[in-house]
Amino acid sequence: MSDKPLVGILMGSDNDYEIMVEAARALKGFGISYEMKVSSAHRSPERTAGYARMARQRGIRALIVGAGAAAHLAGVIAAETPLPVIGVPIDSSALQGLDALLSTVQMPAGIPVATMAIGKAGARNAGIFAVQLLAADDEALASRLSDFKADMAKKVGEKSSTVQERLAADGL
Amino acid sequence: MSDKPLVGILMGSDNDYEIMVEAARALKGFGISYEMKVSSAHRSPERTAGYARMARQRGIRALIVGAGAAAHLAGVIAAETPLPVIGVPIDSSALQGLDALLSTVQMPAGIPVATMAIGKAGARNAGIFAVQLLAADDEALASRLSDFKADMAKKVGEKSSTVQERLAADGL
Amino acid sequence: MSDKPLVGILMGSDNDYEIMVEAARALKGFGISYEMKVSSAHRSPERTAGYARMARQRGIRALIVGAGAAAHLAGVIAAETPLPVIGVPIDSSALQGLDALLSTVQMPAGIPVATMAIGKAGARNAGIFAVQLLAADDEALASRLSDFKADMAKKVGEKSSTVQERLAADGL
Amino acid sequence: MSDKPLVGILMGSDNDYEIMVEAARALKGFGISYEMKVSSAHRSPERTAGYARMARQRGIRALIVGAGAAAHLAGVIAAETPLPVIGVPIDSSALQGLDALLSTVQMPAGIPVATMAIGKAGARNAGIFAVQLLAADDEALASRLSDFKADMAKKVGEKSSTVQERLAADGL
Amino acid sequence: MSDKPLVGILMGSDNDYEIMVEAARALKGFGISYEMKVSSAHRSPERTAGYARMARQRGIRALIVGAGAAAHLAGVIAAETPLPVIGVPIDSSALQGLDALLSTVQMPAGIPVATMAIGKAGARNAGIFAVQLLAADDEALASRLSDFKADMAKKVGEKSSTVQERLAADGL
Amino acid sequence: MSDKPLVGILMGSDNDYEIMVEAARALKGFGISYEMKVSSAHRSPERTAGYARMARQRGIRALIVGAGAAAHLAGVIAAETPLPVIGVPIDSSALQGLDALLSTVQMPAGIPVATMAIGKAGARNAGIFAVQLLAADDEALASRLSDFKADMAKKVGEKSSTVQERLAADGL
Amino acid sequence: MSDKPLVGILMGSDNDYEIMVEAARALKGFGISYEMKVSSAHRSPERTAGYARMARQRGIRALIVGAGAAAHLAGVIAAETPLPVIGVPIDSSALQGLDALLSTVQMPAGIPVATMAIGKAGARNAGIFAVQLLAADDEALASRLSDFKADMAKKVGEKSSTVQERLAADGL
Amino acid sequence: MSDKPLVGILMGSDNDYEIMVEAARALKGFGISYEMKVSSAHRSPERTAGYARMARQRGIRALIVGAGAAAHLAGVIAAETPLPVIGVPIDSSALQGLDALLSTVQMPAGIPVATMAIGKAGARNAGIFAVQLLAADDEALASRLSDFKADMAKKVGEKSSTVQERLAADGL
Repeated sequence: MSDKPLVGILMGSDNDYEIMVEAARALKGFGISYEMKVSSAHRSPERTAGYARMARQRGIRALIVGAGAAAHLAGVIAAETPLPVIGVPIDSSALQGLDALLSTVQMPAGIPVATMAIGKAGARNAGIFAVQLLAADDEALASRLSDFKADMAKKVGEKSSTVQERLAADGL
Repeated sequence: MSDKPLVGILMGSDNDYEIMVEAARALKGFGISYEMKVSSAHRSPERTAGYARMARQRGIRALIVGAGAAAHLAGVIAAETPLPVIGVPIDSSALQGLDALLSTVQMPAGIPVATMAIGKAGARNAGIFAVQLLAADDEALASRLSDFKADMAKKVGEKSSTVQERLAADGL
Repeated sequence: MSDKPLVGILMGSDNDYEIMVEAARALKGFGISYEMKVSSAHRSPERTAGYARMARQRGIRALIVGAGAAAHLAGVIAAETPLPVIGVPIDSSALQGLDALLSTVQMPAGIPVATMAIGKAGARNAGIFAVQLLAADDEALASRLSDFKADMAKKVGEKSSTVQERLAADGL
Repeated sequence: MSDKPLVGILMGSDNDYEIMVEAARALKGFGISYEMKVSSAHRSPERTAGYARMARQRGIRALIVGAGAAAHLAGVIAAETPLPVIGVPIDSSALQGLDALLSTVQMPAGIPVATMAIGKAGARNAGIFAVQLLAADDEALASRLSDFKADMAKKVGEKSSTVQERLAADGL
Repeated sequence: MSDKPLVGILMGSDNDYEIMVEAARALKGFGISYEMKVSSAHRSPERTAGYARMARQRGIRALIVGAGAAAHLAGVIAAETPLPVIGVPIDSSALQGLDALLSTVQMPAGIPVATMAIGKAGARNAGIFAVQLLAADDEALASRLSDFKADMAKKVGEKSSTVQERLAADGL
Repeated sequence: MSDKPLVGILMGSDNDYEIMVEAARALKGFGISYEMKVSSAHRSPERTAGYARMARQRGIRALIVGAGAAAHLAGVIAAETPLPVIGVPIDSSALQGLDALLSTVQMPAGIPVATMAIGKAGARNAGIFAVQLLAADDEALASRLSDFKADMAKKVGEKSSTVQERLAADGL
Repeated sequence: MSDKPLVGILMGSDNDYEIMVEAARALKGFGISYEMKVSSAHRSPERTAGYARMARQRGIRALIVGAGAAAHLAGVIAAETPLPVIGVPIDSSALQGLDALLSTVQMPAGIPVATMAIGKAGARNAGIFAVQLLAADDEALASRLSDFKADMAKKVGEKSSTVQERLAADGL
Repeated sequence: MSDKPLVGILMGSDNDYEIMVEAARALKGFGISYEMKVSSAHRSPERTAGYARMARQRGIRALIVGAGAAAHLAGVIAAETPLPVIGVPIDSSALQGLDALLSTVQMPAGIPVATMAIGKAGARNAGIFAVQLLAADDEALASRLSDFKADMAKKVGEKSSTVQERLAADGL
């Protein structure tokens, strides 16, 4: 997306792309410009701190940060910027994302990280949550969020019909 | 606080007050008006849904929601409003808040809840995160957040001196 | 099943069908009429509350509710009806159903959800438990439950023979 | 309560009384007769099986069973009766009731135990759930359940007022 | 094995055979006679209690019991016999055997179950432990156990050589 | 107890005495001679290995071993003796004995440790299990075990009466 | 200790002093000079990075870092220095140190943190481990470590005597 | 590697080779000589203790030890040598390495094991940590570690470019 980005999406490794692209998809669905970067809390600390410190003045309004295992990236970024930081724990170790969840959410008083669910649902929700932030002073966007909710509700009804058909097909 | 509230703080039970008052303290520290209510996802579902549906048009910009055990309150509120919902898991069962954390954070795609740490640190961070949201289009508030960060950093230095003194007192 | 349903089976997503169909199979095995719907606590809150509020007067006697991750659906339904609500935690996130189990079972005082095991065994047992409820004032049904138990006991003996054969086949 | 009991409350040890008495209180609040016994799956297996086998013909309509640690009691009773069995995990070991929860809820297909939350909330809900079962064919009881729900909702509003006062008292 | 069995191996379901056959293999390796049965704590409680009560007078000296999920079988058997009962938790639910482990090991004071590791290693060790029990008054068997230990130690040395070769093959 | 000991009770630290004395009490209750030692897998490895290697020829028939945290002691002892080793996990770290439980029970194939419940119940059961081992070839002891079981069953009935009285005292 | 420090002890908050002083005690016991500082990964990121970057050239040979909850401090320091970093998870949240343990130990490939046990035992061991590092090229220190081990072994024998006395005092 | 080894890599079973070879690769990358052995805490206790006792005088400067399940090997080795012992928990049981992690890291005061992450990342980091130990008195090696860090940081930038390309390829 070529506009000046409003949201920055960061991830600790390109292995996290398949998960974090869900945040990009959500943002694109609402027409919100974004950028996506790899930066590591541990392997590239200066790059990470530098990015975080410059984000606000570059016009970024929210940061979405995904990481796995001892997922320090969201916290490290939150330490360097007053922008809202949204964390996405990624299931990339033997412990199924429990390590990433606890490392992301259990931040000490003073430095919040807004933590989403582990994995794809969380990445998608991070995008939607960023839209909710931006909709605070944007009625058009708020209206699109309402449409989005109405659309989700409508699809539930359609899925309910699908289930009836499967039940019939199963002779139940 | 008597101003028209910008942030709504909800909790599932008045037993949660000691935790959730930390959110109020954080907001007050930044001069942000708020209101605080008890409402239950399970005991007063209509009250809860009604509050959530009206919040945006009443001028509320973010909702902070604390609950323990099978903590459904933040999710139920997020289902009814396009506003950003910030969840605070509360340790009020035998399982030390793990149940509240998972019930709050593991939201399905489409309905994000921005989850904070379990307990007081989380409640305080919920207030600070709400300030970060409001600071997106408020330079004065953004500037106060920067001061807040600088002040935290300064206090770390002071605490380091305290530790030297304790070490000396312990003869180490 | 075309009779007026005595049991309502709900699930948060059609992805849960493969699990929840086990409840339908159990009910059908006992000749109990049921209906099956998709409804989401978060994506379609009005549909969900509306269904729950009307269930009793439509003649429903028990509700079986399956959901995964932050599984709020059973609790949200229990908030809206005096009918017994039976919850089935579904393993649909990285955390193997532990999140769904805790979100379903750890309900606050006042709003019970009768929670079954995670996954297919739980869905099947939800159906059987609904039969047990209905058998309270139905001697014929109670008698079929006794036959069902006797049949399970008999099959254990048959399985024991199978194991002898496998042991022999393995030269042990 | 001297009436012929409709509900049997069992616990594995008299140490569980403080928890399980909440079930009795809930039942008494709805005017449902009950009896309370200690019986152990492991220390008194015959007594336990005997009680379970006789319960239905003695007029019992539901069984509430509390146990801690490797909480086998509810499952063992469910094996011996077609009555609905409601399990209450009790936090009585080092593992804070997680062992009791998993031992109670993870029943194999065929033998359901309707599991409630760990501890007092769960015991209270077990009583309420038993009332919900009995209300299936008792309109007066169903009406009392509706009143109970309305009363809970009303108390939430009162608690909300309490919180306003505490906030004011704290100068917030 | 056609001799009068000294060890009884029980499992809750024939699905557990692949795990529990490891116990049989271990016993056969030491020339100990055994029998293997399926019996369920919940589906066939009388069969289970009956087997347990008769085991000692039939000449059985130890019981090995495997079960998954809410694994009550070992505890239920231990309630009915003074024989040593060795429990094997089986990973057959979404929770990877943690439920079976806690259900087996967290027995209340008075009724021990000697719990082994989850799965095949545990089943194999259950067999070996039964041999250790029988070796208490059998010098020849004790001597075979010593040989078994010596053989394990020797194999470690061989495996160490294998690792050297793999390292060389990997150019390391 | 001054007789030549039949059971050795070991613990990793004298801090574990309050737990492990329950094993001694159980053994004394059955008239079984024992000895109790502190030995550490990590602080005194030679002492530990030496004790384990000599135990059988000193006439010891079973070893009861308690340890907390990374509880290696039972496994280390089992490595050095063909005697049955009974492990008692002790809750002495922040993790409530979960670390000790997993360190004790998850032994690799070849070296069983018969694991009991965490804490006092486990220590007591370790003593009883040792009695069960010794009763294999001792009819008098087996008879005392049967009496012990009968006595436990009888006490359950007495506790049930206590509960009636408490219920009456509570006006329930 | 006034010598030029060889070991730096850092902690995220002065609340961690009571735990981390154990590391100082261990170092002092071996005559190793150290310094102790408070620095926070999140509240004072520049201070933290600056300290880490300068440590090696100031003559520091190892860093001991304690933190609780989402314990990022050790990882953040390890990102900025080639020195060995020893992490001590601190139990300072509702989750009993499990969050701190996973946040400290689950570091990604490339940036090791040598993690010790949760709490005081871990802090003490961090000090001893630092001594082990320094002893690599210091025969005198290595010799003191051997004495330390011998002394621990000796004390185990003394504790064993204590246990005999307690047993006698308890009439066992 | 044919030089006199500076680092010993041990594992409990040759099944652990695929994990532990990562430690060898890391060491080889820095030109550090090493040896690799299989030895078991439980199956070959004498071999294990003997290796540990001789390691320092053979010129070994650090030991890397991997094991799964009830992972006692690192602790048992640490008990026998003043050398720094680096533990790698291996995910080889149903519990996904949580058992190995707790068994390795929760060492009692006096006997540290420097624990790395579960699995391959941990094995690789064990190798790097050993290099960090050896670099304490080796400026050339310290300089290579700095280069290694710089190289990791550079690769992060490259991965960030990869992500841009994937985003473009996905039309996002």
